[in-house]
Amino acid sequence: MISGKNSIGKKFSAKGTITYTTFNPELNEENTTVFTEATSSEINEAVALSSEAFKEFREVSGERKAAFLNTIADEILALDNLLIQTYCSETGLPEGRAKGERARTVGQLRSFANLVAEGSWVEATIDVAQPNREPMPKPDIRKMLIPLGPVVVFGASNFPLAYSTAGGDTAAALAAGCPVIVKSHPMHAGTGELVASAIIIAAQKTGMPNGVFSNLNSSGIEVGQQLVSHPDVKAVGFTGSIKGGRALLDLASKREEPIPVFAEMGSINPVVILPKALENRNEAIAKIYASSITLGTGQFCTNPGLLLGVKSDALSSFINNLSQEIMEMNPSCMLHPNIKNGYVNNKEKVISQANVSVTANFTSEVENNYAEQTIVSVSGEEFLANPTLHLEVFGPFSMVVQCNNLSELETVISKLEGQLTGTVISDDNEVSDYPAIIAALQNRVGRIIFNGVPTGVEVCESMVHGGPYPASTDSRFTAVGINSIKRWVRPFSYQDWPNNLLPKELQDENPLGVFRIKDGIRSK
Amino acid sequence: MISGKNSIGKKFSAKGTITYTTFNPELNEENTTVFTEATSSEINEAVALSSEAFKEFREVSGERKAAFLNTIADEILALDNLLIQTYCSETGLPEGRAKGERARTVGQLRSFANLVAEGSWVEATIDVAQPNREPMPKPDIRKMLIPLGPVVVFGASNFPLAYSTAGGDTAAALAAGCPVIVKSHPMHAGTGELVASAIIIAAQKTGMPNGVFSNLNSSGIEVGQQLVSHPDVKAVGFTGSIKGGRALLDLASKREEPIPVFAEMGSINPVVILPKALENRNEAIAKIYASSITLGTGQFCTNPGLLLGVKSDALSSFINNLSQEIMEMNPSCMLHPNIKNGYVNNKEKVISQANVSVTANFTSEVENNYAEQTIVSVSGEEFLANPTLHLEVFGPFSMVVQCNNLSELETVISKLEGQLTGTVISDDNEVSDYPAIIAALQNRVGRIIFNGVPTGVEVCESMVHGGPYPASTDSRFTAVGINSIKRWVRPFSYQDWPNNLLPKELQDENPLGVFRIKDGIRSK
Repeated sequence: MISGKNSIGKKFSAKGTITYTTFNPELNEENTTVFTEATSSEINEAVALSSEAFKEFREVSGERKAAFLNTIADEILALDNLLIQTYCSETGLPEGRAKGERARTVGQLRSFANLVAEGSWVEATIDVAQPNREPMPKPDIRKMLIPLGPVVVFGASNFPLAYSTAGGDTAAALAAGCPVIVKSHPMHAGTGELVASAIIIAAQKTGMPNGVFSNLNSSGIEVGQQLVSHPDVKAVGFTGSIKGGRALLDLASKREEPIPVFAEMGSINPVVILPKALENRNEAIAKIYASSITLGTGQFCTNPGLLLGVKSDALSSFINNLSQEIMEMNPSCMLHPNIKNGYVNNKEKVISQANVSVTANFTSEVENNYAEQTIVSVSGEEFLANPTLHLEVFGPFSMVVQCNNLSELETVISKLEGQLTGTVISDDNEVSDYPAIIAALQNRVGRIIFNGVPTGVEVCESMVHGGPYPASTDSRFTAVGINSIKRWVRPFSYQDWPNNLLPKELQDENPLGVFRIKDGIRSK
Repeated sequence: MISGKNSIGKKFSAKGTITYTTFNPELNEENTTVFTEATSSEINEAVALSSEAFKEFREVSGERKAAFLNTIADEILALDNLLIQTYCSETGLPEGRAKGERARTVGQLRSFANLVAEGSWVEATIDVAQPNREPMPKPDIRKMLIPLGPVVVFGASNFPLAYSTAGGDTAAALAAGCPVIVKSHPMHAGTGELVASAIIIAAQKTGMPNGVFSNLNSSGIEVGQQLVSHPDVKAVGFTGSIKGGRALLDLASKREEPIPVFAEMGSINPVVILPKALENRNEAIAKIYASSITLGTGQFCTNPGLLLGVKSDALSSFINNLSQEIMEMNPSCMLHPNIKNGYVNNKEKVISQANVSVTANFTSEVENNYAEQTIVSVSGEEFLANPTLHLEVFGPFSMVVQCNNLSELETVISKLEGQLTGTVISDDNEVSDYPAIIAALQNRVGRIIFNGVPTGVEVCESMVHGGPYPASTDSRFTAVGINSIKRWVRPFSYQDWPNNLLPKELQDENPLGVFRIKDGIRSK
């Protein structure tokens, strides 16, 4: 059922000679399907088809795009157990997670369908002419958002559904009216092909142009590099490592025509634990954080990798409690041996730095590809002095930084790289005593959380998933929620354009009934 | 009255040894004030002060920012004739233009003041908690736009007021809550200092933190390079040449933390003249375009540098009419001898290409620093084959491209670099016969104009001044109009944050009465 081939629009193609398989980390063995990497000419063919499809797709109505997105969701659900089993066999993640992520993916597609069916997302803005204005007549100007062109999406290793083939980036780009070419993630190429087939069937069922979607296999970095360098590609979405995201940004910046790259990259998600909370809820906080740190084997971009507090007996006892709690969690499987190796190596790199204490440590072996969860502790001075300690260790790992005082805590926060999230653990009113610390934290993150955990990214309009570099390459956008559509569109003005030739959203009669701003007044 | 010194916050400083003067192109002589370029340590001091000011300024209410912006406008007007005279002496532009540009600048400042006083621009979005949602409780998430941090603004040579010291970039950044450091344009350093003094007085009168604004002199590229490379600078606004804007973008992209650069750069603003319009209104169109091409000595980024049509007797006669009309215009003064030299050299470069006919040509000499307006003509094939013909010739110059047929015309349009504007000259309903040409044009521009001229950029909410590269470095934003504030802000989410500690825009009670989206519903 899974062919191992590339999809160039609706056509299967496998002209290349580079092949690879995916890996089942639970069984510790290769899966059987052989995937063929896209060749240079297949990449060019996919981009040319995508550019051609754009001419038609950019004019498709919101209602028809909504039907397309909803049908993708239906077709993904129709894949049923085959999709769930393939997902599990390529990730080592449990069935419950697969189903949860599928629900999230389907929910995202439907939320973008609702957005474009309703239509107000284009931010239609109208300033009517004033032909008698002095000293110069005022022209009629009308503006709305229009799609950028073909978008390349890089699938994420840790979210084969929600942040990959038909994940948030793809759903947002298709909703915007941009054709999508997915650079399939090699670790879950089978899951990717199944989801791609759902998109392609949906495109055919709803009459979308051939080439509105393509799926290209790749085992290394070359396919992605060629895609990002192609002059007809107009934007890039990526979820993954800082190294990978930065390499794509650099490539896109060097093009004759630089293009936007929205990369959601690393984050260590600092958690500030305030003194009274630590006094009063020490064990409860330790328990909650042991769960958050090990959730999904720590393979979330919002995993709390950094816990910050001021030195005290309560903080010492918290470190003990957390270490004990975390050792009571059952180790779990990582996505791939390469991810496990990365975890081991990065952890080793951090642990081997001067003055790092390991406070939760395994003495017995764990199963193949299972991760040994780890807590380490370090002083504020040491953390400030050694940038290696700021490294993201992707996996169930967290570092407690013990600051000498509040001023050092503020310095540690203000020197952090950009982060997706920052969390404050506080007794009810305690937080209001620390305005400088909260302001410093806000300045480094995209989302600030009160008395919770950073894991769990609610898909809603108010969500910001992004943040100052390197959390993302452009903090002015979010990767989650309907506003993520703004990454793939640009404003466009019509001046004195004939009413009957304007897009419906801008016509005098407002035939779609969208929300607009007309001469500064919001109305339908 | 003009000191020639840098302003680091409210402090004058001139520690450097590199000095320069501005030039009066009408009198063809140096002005007398000696300006001192900022030193490396002065630059660092300005950025440090700006970062410090940001801590306070980002929390300043919309009402107080509005007072600041309105007071800047008042103080600019209070400079009265001194400003107008300095402007004219540094640009060769007439008094009427100086006053018009001052009115535009003041209008922009007041429009941003209104925007932030009203407050809805922050796009407050609220999703309330659903503690009983299954399978997981929904947290309370609230989002709004917050400022990025210190912004560096590069003044433009051709708009000493409206796109320079207190121009659109500065007004938008201050409105957003970002401190601004202006890299003053060396050609109008005196005008820049006067306007800077207005901003600094306004900051003091309205209680803004010292360092909310600084003005640094520079004669070359070094001051700008150091500013863009400084780790505490968070965004850059630039208006000028492709070469200059691209150099800044490249520099910003290579930083450890890449930052957004919004550069509004070159454009040749294609104008498509449809056959019937050419038949019926040949002379009228020629007259209108002769004016638009020579307006402000052609020194507008929206100057119509490219006129496109299909070969015909009517087109030939249009070329004659336009050439005749343009030779009847009086030559006028350019901004600076360097600008005049650039005009002469770029024009020479284009004219010297194969198969370019010059159809309007001066035989007599013009005054020093005055520009000889020029029309050339070339075939569609030649234009497609030779990228040098796509070069922006900054000044009163336009090229007519005679295409063999409609298909070649469409190809010419689709191969154009990104442009600020595209114009269609059409008989009433003629435009609806050319959907492919209009679609191709729309895909290459930020604003499309019906039966008008591209010069004259209305400042209003619906305006897009920007476009695909190289019209701008990021087509997702506009440089003109209140939405240009979006270049300098990022969305930020609060999760389960205590209501009394939220910004007013996000509090349950909506004390500022701003427009918000709550659980998907728009209301106040």
